[in-house]
Amino acid sequence: MRAVDIIQKKRDNETLTTEEITFLLDNYLKGNVPDYQMSSFLMAVYFNGMAKDELKVFTERMMHSGDIIKFEKITKFLVDKHSTGGVGDKTTIALAPIFACFDIGTAKLSGRGLGHTGGTIDKFESIKGFTFPETRDELVNLVNKTGIGIMGYSDKIVPLDKKLYSLRDVTATVPSIPLIASSIMSKKLAVYADGIILDVKVGSGAFMKNLEDAETLADTMIDIGDSFDRKVVAILTDMDQPLGFAVGNSLEIIEAIETLKGNGPKDFTELVKTLAAIALIIKGDETDIEVAKTKVDEVIHSGKALSHLKDFIRNCGGEEKIVDDYSYLKIAEKTYDFKAEKDGYVSKIEAESVGKAAMVLGAGRATKADIIDHSVGVVLEKKIGSKVKAGDVLAKIYYSKEETLNSSIEKLKEAFEISNEHLAERDVIIKIKKNF
Amino acid sequence: MRAVDIIQKKRDNETLTTEEITFLLDNYLKGNVPDYQMSSFLMAVYFNGMAKDELKVFTERMMHSGDIIKFEKITKFLVDKHSTGGVGDKTTIALAPIFACFDIGTAKLSGRGLGHTGGTIDKFESIKGFTFPETRDELVNLVNKTGIGIMGYSDKIVPLDKKLYSLRDVTATVPSIPLIASSIMSKKLAVYADGIILDVKVGSGAFMKNLEDAETLADTMIDIGDSFDRKVVAILTDMDQPLGFAVGNSLEIIEAIETLKGNGPKDFTELVKTLAAIALIIKGDETDIEVAKTKVDEVIHSGKALSHLKDFIRNCGGEEKIVDDYSYLKIAEKTYDFKAEKDGYVSKIEAESVGKAAMVLGAGRATKADIIDHSVGVVLEKKIGSKVKAGDVLAKIYYSKEETLNSSIEKLKEAFEISNEHLAERDVIIKIKKNF
Repeated sequence: MRAVDIIQKKRDNETLTTEEITFLLDNYLKGNVPDYQMSSFLMAVYFNGMAKDELKVFTERMMHSGDIIKFEKITKFLVDKHSTGGVGDKTTIALAPIFACFDIGTAKLSGRGLGHTGGTIDKFESIKGFTFPETRDELVNLVNKTGIGIMGYSDKIVPLDKKLYSLRDVTATVPSIPLIASSIMSKKLAVYADGIILDVKVGSGAFMKNLEDAETLADTMIDIGDSFDRKVVAILTDMDQPLGFAVGNSLEIIEAIETLKGNGPKDFTELVKTLAAIALIIKGDETDIEVAKTKVDEVIHSGKALSHLKDFIRNCGGEEKIVDDYSYLKIAEKTYDFKAEKDGYVSKIEAESVGKAAMVLGAGRATKADIIDHSVGVVLEKKIGSKVKAGDVLAKIYYSKEETLNSSIEKLKEAFEISNEHLAERDVIIKIKKNF
Repeated sequence: MRAVDIIQKKRDNETLTTEEITFLLDNYLKGNVPDYQMSSFLMAVYFNGMAKDELKVFTERMMHSGDIIKFEKITKFLVDKHSTGGVGDKTTIALAPIFACFDIGTAKLSGRGLGHTGGTIDKFESIKGFTFPETRDELVNLVNKTGIGIMGYSDKIVPLDKKLYSLRDVTATVPSIPLIASSIMSKKLAVYADGIILDVKVGSGAFMKNLEDAETLADTMIDIGDSFDRKVVAILTDMDQPLGFAVGNSLEIIEAIETLKGNGPKDFTELVKTLAAIALIIKGDETDIEVAKTKVDEVIHSGKALSHLKDFIRNCGGEEKIVDDYSYLKIAEKTYDFKAEKDGYVSKIEAESVGKAAMVLGAGRATKADIIDHSVGVVLEKKIGSKVKAGDVLAKIYYSKEETLNSSIEKLKEAFEISNEHLAERDVIIKIKKNF
């Protein structure tokens, strides 16, 4: 078997056999197939895609390129919520405590990664004293005790994905739906969960810019889940503007806590409630999503969800008082009011530019070596559809370094658009799809 | 400028600028753009092609990646005939002496290369004592003296082509028409000729398996020639069966000489006469191809062309007596008659398999290190359309090593097909296209 013949078959849109995909991926991981062959293969996949059976094998080889974690000692029903990224996504922080109320466990490996704001790990590290489990046993104990366990991502999980992603990044082969789907699903499948919820973001601030692509990605991932007999729900959600108001680590922690107190932003609250309701359906506790959502409402209003969050923070050595008193969190003291220059309606808030506005302040990492400033960020005061007058505050910038302010303001100027036309408010939930 | 953005543009079928193509190719040659980026770019070109303006710049950058040879000291009108390869292609050997009769010079850099039989260089080396010029000055002198000059290909001519071709070979990006066209034309343009004739082979034994692709390739190369103000004629010729009868180095020398004596195979003679007539039209001596062909006929029948070949061989230190007495050539003594197994008409002679039948005997190189046996080969006795009876000889195998015979016979079995249906004889010339 030769790599060049496999590339040629994919180029000519013929279906690859299990043996061929296995040969290509296993030998690429070992270094026997060079990058230059893999990159031309990936470009051929960009153009010709992959059939369902090919994708199953492709994902399976990815998954088995490293450690498989089964969490056999976890007693809870595990649901893994994955989001395809976005700006202001603090969902896990609010969601995991709600899951815990229903005996649904969260056992997550989360990346620090690069981007506009930090990952979930970075956000929790805004809390004084907070540390994450360092071993899998510690993670398992934490989940069994609190219902929630999060630890840093291990290089030993799907190492092939890392190798492939680095190559795709420099060869213009990132935006291929089967490659994205197998990358996400191989990691989901390598770390066991009883059910998987995929939050597929759609819009200017997301990887999938339009609904059609997002649906295809959702369907593709659901199909892969199917091949592995795993229950998968995909929820397509709007990312034409940031989720909620806050973008920045401490600021997002506050917003997540407010949401568990029943005071969260409308879109973010709706998303969290819907995701939690889906988990109840996956677990089999409920069958109707509206009924499930009222159950979720109850654990929010009773304060039960919030107490689970406190419990988790305390068990991770964090200062639990922050839940009741935000002055225990480090928030930048300097603020700047970014104001509307004219009357009208907010017609656009480009999520990516808002994300960059936070990143330049120090909320995210441009390169791996950057150190995150947890105290800085941007808090929107208006969302798409809001009526504004010239001089109204559109967003508040929290900054620590004088020299970062101007470029943050520039990014916000790029993000906002005010027009005379009154656009309707956006629904955050676009569509829900499942394979069971 | 970043390579990844250029790859992305090509992937998205946007037109690349001169600066972008220049950046990509120049930096690839220098080693600043790695193979894995170039191979994904090449695969994107495979799918999206190149526009005329892109291709001009691409070819121009290829051409200028190495030495440009202008032949300013050559006094003859230079016509360069290039063939896209094929089996039994001994055209240059018969054509160059005819050109010489009309004061049309041949100044050729020819490869040894790999393949079914040797290159033109290898074929001439069948002649005892024959040596090629080693410097460009020697080549120029030889052309000015005899009208014919051939020397080995230099690595300094279009080194980028060599680098790109090696990569394409292992990444399934060889059969891309713009890449083939720019590869051929960059080499033609780097070594000066007043006119270029491109013999584009079509059929099972050729690179272009169907007429449509061959026409596209011809048009693309003519367009490139146009961009560089060079007169180009493309002639599409049949390669559904080997050209002429002989495949093998000494055997092809004999066939070329016989053709100059007026006794050549019908298809090969027709091709040689047409190519020579085209050269007369390019030079401006004639305007009508039929008239030009009668002029060519004259120099064949008068023996003038043959004496130019003798002249050339003598000036290269070769044994000129071989022209009149083939016993001066080394021909394998052992022969094997490959016979028809049933009555019928020859309906197929797969050129590639005949080529392999010669190669396994030692007529060509499978790897660079192989040493050619000039004495071996295959001589067809029948062509497509011939009526045969069981037991009739279809081809004669000339071999020197016992152990090579069986696999040669196997290849011939694969090559020949005999059916009840009488297929018409094929015309070798399919179409002629030009840009002036």
